[in-house]
Amino acid sequence: MRIGIYAGSFDPVTYGHEDLIERSLSFVDRLVVAVATNVAKQPLFSVEDRIRFIRSAVDHEPRVEVRQFDGLLVDLAREVGATLSVRGLRAVADFEYEFQMALMNRHLNADMETVFMMPRLDLTYVSSSLVREIARFEGNTGDLVNPLVHQALRERFSRA
Amino acid sequence: MRIGIYAGSFDPVTYGHEDLIERSLSFVDRLVVAVATNVAKQPLFSVEDRIRFIRSAVDHEPRVEVRQFDGLLVDLAREVGATLSVRGLRAVADFEYEFQMALMNRHLNADMETVFMMPRLDLTYVSSSLVREIARFEGNTGDLVNPLVHQALRERFSRA
Amino acid sequence: MRIGIYAGSFDPVTYGHEDLIERSLSFVDRLVVAVATNVAKQPLFSVEDRIRFIRSAVDHEPRVEVRQFDGLLVDLAREVGATLSVRGLRAVADFEYEFQMALMNRHLNADMETVFMMPRLDLTYVSSSLVREIARFEGNTGDLVNPLVHQALRERFSRA
Amino acid sequence: MRIGIYAGSFDPVTYGHEDLIERSLSFVDRLVVAVATNVAKQPLFSVEDRIRFIRSAVDHEPRVEVRQFDGLLVDLAREVGATLSVRGLRAVADFEYEFQMALMNRHLNADMETVFMMPRLDLTYVSSSLVREIARFEGNTGDLVNPLVHQALRERFSRA
Amino acid sequence: MRIGIYAGSFDPVTYGHEDLIERSLSFVDRLVVAVATNVAKQPLFSVEDRIRFIRSAVDHEPRVEVRQFDGLLVDLAREVGATLSVRGLRAVADFEYEFQMALMNRHLNADMETVFMMPRLDLTYVSSSLVREIARFEGNTGDLVNPLVHQALRERFSRA
Amino acid sequence: MRIGIYAGSFDPVTYGHEDLIERSLSFVDRLVVAVATNVAKQPLFSVEDRIRFIRSAVDHEPRVEVRQFDGLLVDLAREVGATLSVRGLRAVADFEYEFQMALMNRHLNADMETVFMMPRLDLTYVSSSLVREIARFEGNTGDLVNPLVHQALRERFSRA
Repeated sequence: MRIGIYAGSFDPVTYGHEDLIERSLSFVDRLVVAVATNVAKQPLFSVEDRIRFIRSAVDHEPRVEVRQFDGLLVDLAREVGATLSVRGLRAVADFEYEFQMALMNRHLNADMETVFMMPRLDLTYVSSSLVREIARFEGNTGDLVNPLVHQALRERFSRA
Repeated sequence: MRIGIYAGSFDPVTYGHEDLIERSLSFVDRLVVAVATNVAKQPLFSVEDRIRFIRSAVDHEPRVEVRQFDGLLVDLAREVGATLSVRGLRAVADFEYEFQMALMNRHLNADMETVFMMPRLDLTYVSSSLVREIARFEGNTGDLVNPLVHQALRERFSRA
Repeated sequence: MRIGIYAGSFDPVTYGHEDLIERSLSFVDRLVVAVATNVAKQPLFSVEDRIRFIRSAVDHEPRVEVRQFDGLLVDLAREVGATLSVRGLRAVADFEYEFQMALMNRHLNADMETVFMMPRLDLTYVSSSLVREIARFEGNTGDLVNPLVHQALRERFSRA
Repeated sequence: MRIGIYAGSFDPVTYGHEDLIERSLSFVDRLVVAVATNVAKQPLFSVEDRIRFIRSAVDHEPRVEVRQFDGLLVDLAREVGATLSVRGLRAVADFEYEFQMALMNRHLNADMETVFMMPRLDLTYVSSSLVREIARFEGNTGDLVNPLVHQALRERFSRA
Repeated sequence: MRIGIYAGSFDPVTYGHEDLIERSLSFVDRLVVAVATNVAKQPLFSVEDRIRFIRSAVDHEPRVEVRQFDGLLVDLAREVGATLSVRGLRAVADFEYEFQMALMNRHLNADMETVFMMPRLDLTYVSSSLVREIARFEGNTGDLVNPLVHQALRERFSRA
Repeated sequence: MRIGIYAGSFDPVTYGHEDLIERSLSFVDRLVVAVATNVAKQPLFSVEDRIRFIRSAVDHEPRVEVRQFDGLLVDLAREVGATLSVRGLRAVADFEYEFQMALMNRHLNADMETVFMMPRLDLTYVSSSLVREIARFEGNTGDLVNPLVHQALRERFSRA
């Protein structure tokens, strides 16, 4: 059985992330979505919220497990038996950072391979940070994130 | 009448920014220079100072309006009737970030187009952050920013 | 009156090119689409065909003129009174080549400014060379190029 | 059963290609290595030789099939039942070209996904064209290609 | 006598930095390794520790001087009589930032030239920030940094 | 004595090349400018002309030797005792190609180091191929190449 990991801070999960989860399932048997607790900056949503948002998006899919993690990706891979790390690539800047990480991870754990995929084209410009920025100024995030997240963003930033 | 917006934090305005303002006027009838108040980090100069520095540079040009803004660029465009957002491109890193922003802005407001221009070649290496760094160590910023800004930087960082 | 030039080999014109022509008209009063005859490699279509394909796409638009050109872009700009050269940017590789050209053109003719635009997102992967490649193997080009070009490609590559 | 395709001109196959074939087998059940006959330039080796070189490298691996192809990758995928196209990424220039191809292929065949992998770090600088260049001047290619290819290159370029 | 400067925050020095120091000595007669005290973020190690770590790595090499600096690189160059600034390049993102800095430095001091080198290939993915990240989660840094740094990282992050 | 090589096709030498030759002399004792005879495409100028054009530019500089070469750079380096290969970097596309070459050369000859430099900013857009293109259409190349080359280009392309 091939187990993959898709790790990130998911603050919050976007349709871009959800698209990548779905695509990954075409070549892994099980996918662990790992929500990092140790993000450098103060996250907008708690790790519990971030996990809940992802679960709501994939609850029809028994092959996906959503969990938090705090540590090195390669250690998590050993713990859950994963041999693939799945990453989305949108831009050259992504590419270089992701390559450095993938090379370092290969150095730390030769048994985990990193594979890269492209999100759906019309989601290439969607990132969690842009979504937060738009929500902050009460722009419409309805077609960037799922309804649960959309609602949570509105509540968080409503000026009333 | 074609109205363009040139938005940024301008902390402080450099000769690179001034060059781009001038170039923009070759294809817009009126340009709104929008000074963002919601910059993430603590700015070096207040928004009032940043506006004053730009005004001193363009006061001979009746087609340019300088104002502050706080929110989404697309909302400002609707408010002032702008159909073009003008951006400078200097490097690949600029390019990717600017593209993501432009795609998101097109998604949020299909009536605003983003156009990119190159600054004068000998200003490609001038950025507000480098200018602040040089001034901090009392390097000479006299040919990077206009005299009013140059003087303000000296006063801010003089160790006397 | 602001006159722009959009130059290329257009072998053949794609929906990506047509999108850029349309976007350009939001900030120029008249656009000269200049079809280069001096392309390095043997073109698939004659310059007459290439011009005809573009004209069929813009014949509803009196502000667009399609013509051939053979020489330096800056000389054509002087001849037709253009002050803007319009370019599409899709990728970093585009960006660098286009920048070198734009800097050289500014050196040769300081009165012509180059402005860059993004094509519609779902057309970013469409290029004339990919279209030719797909048509060569009888793939479907129906949603990449206009009907006249689509038909011409089928005739050119039908194996019957 | 997950079937992947790894397509290229392989003129000749290098240790970089062989590394990618091996890595691919960690997430596909069967891999079709497709050798393009329609390369633009005159290849150094015939398609028969190119296939023979690859087979010699993977003959211990029953899950790999090596064959020639002439046409669109998406058509081959439909023919052999492949749902994944495997690509190596080494550099930003690769990245952009590969992305354009992957987007076009997704457009032409939504059932085929493209996944990207990194070759072994010490093979990132190895390409077929560099190998040909080195062999042409009788440089040592012994640790860049397998022994059969190494010998064939020597015979091809020996000046005696 | 050609004097070079290799400046950075070295928080901590990695085998990648040490490799570059050694390579630089092939074309400078004396190298000043300048440890920046004015790093933006709070460093992990004090400037005294960072200097000590570098000295332990180069103590066999009388041509290298390690010192702290606080100010503009061009001023330090004038002070120590250096005519070359040595920089490592690993990725496109490095390249652009380094180019902007090099152009600005040339503007500030025309007598100092910047030269770029590649680190050893298998160290391209090693950076101080990744090393700190790995050490934080008690991953093994033994082949990324020298023994003294490795020991210091373990002590700093041991959870006991 | 440090000997450097600066290799290229120099078809023809531009002020950008001449700038790099001069900069190189700040850290090598002797520079061999190596004019490749084995350029893929038919060159505009014969190797004798290309050498003559460079010599006319550096004839005041006894430390520079101009010669032709046909083969691998690493073999030439061994022959002339060079330990440095000097390369100019202008753009990201340069960067990647140059890196691949430099890594391959290090693999083939560990005793030759590659160092990269930036040309003068206002020459970044000058390349031999652009110069040929401009001359072909009788544009002015007078401030891109030295007088001897300028005259040769005019003679080559005069339509009289």
